[in-house]
Amino acid sequence: MPPRPERFAAPAAAAPEQELGTAFRPKFGADGLLTAVAIDDATGEVLMLAHMDAEALAATLATGEAHYYSRSRAKLWRKGETSGQVQRVRRILVDCDQDALVLRVAVGGDGGACHTGARSCFYRAVGEDGALRRTEDDRSARAADGS
Amino acid sequence: MPPRPERFAAPAAAAPEQELGTAFRPKFGADGLLTAVAIDDATGEVLMLAHMDAEALAATLATGEAHYYSRSRAKLWRKGETSGQVQRVRRILVDCDQDALVLRVAVGGDGGACHTGARSCFYRAVGEDGALRRTEDDRSARAADGS
Repeated sequence: MPPRPERFAAPAAAAPEQELGTAFRPKFGADGLLTAVAIDDATGEVLMLAHMDAEALAATLATGEAHYYSRSRAKLWRKGETSGQVQRVRRILVDCDQDALVLRVAVGGDGGACHTGARSCFYRAVGEDGALRRTEDDRSARAADGS
Repeated sequence: MPPRPERFAAPAAAAPEQELGTAFRPKFGADGLLTAVAIDDATGEVLMLAHMDAEALAATLATGEAHYYSRSRAKLWRKGETSGQVQRVRRILVDCDQDALVLRVAVGGDGGACHTGARSCFYRAVGEDGALRRTEDDRSARAADGS
């Protein structure tokens, strides 16, 4: 079980305050996690979807590099630690009820995000016949800004 | 509890088959849900993040319109049913382990996705001081294709 999010303000009880206010009140689920979508800031491509606990979110804010909570390894995961695919965070967006984040990132290393070698984890499309097909997008031009 | 996903093939036991194969084997979580990110196909903007159970995914594939599972109402949710913000699905992408989807959609109604009136649910950015600021993006030009 990830640590409780005591380092962030609790979600507001009233929806209008949570949805229209200026206070960051991340709403971690019962499992202590919220969902984060990483977008390549240079291309707008969706790179990956992952989860953050309070520790990962705090580390992301403190370092400017994306940290997630690895559910399979049950531990903090600094993205790119072994692959070099570090994600420098350019902007963090939060959704209406504050239980999901969009991270606009500049990707280091080879510019990719997926452990399979694809640039984006979303490298297959569901065809009309229900089968998956690899998209051309996944290995298309790398982001100009590979910093 | 959402219905079990018996209408889809179960996830493959072997990671390579799940990650590199051509069989669609959506991996619903212990709660019966997977995560879906809706992207405006015309602008590339992230509109919203929601969840799907097997019934919602089957309805989406059958109708070509995004259906989600509303966790707050604990029922199938045809997006746009009351708001008119119907999402016509142009393309569905699936990630490596098949527990997340990206839906590229054409949005009906006023072109928005958020119940607050913002175009995207991600209408606030986390500032360097930790406070939220509304972005200009949320009410920027509506998608050209509002069908």
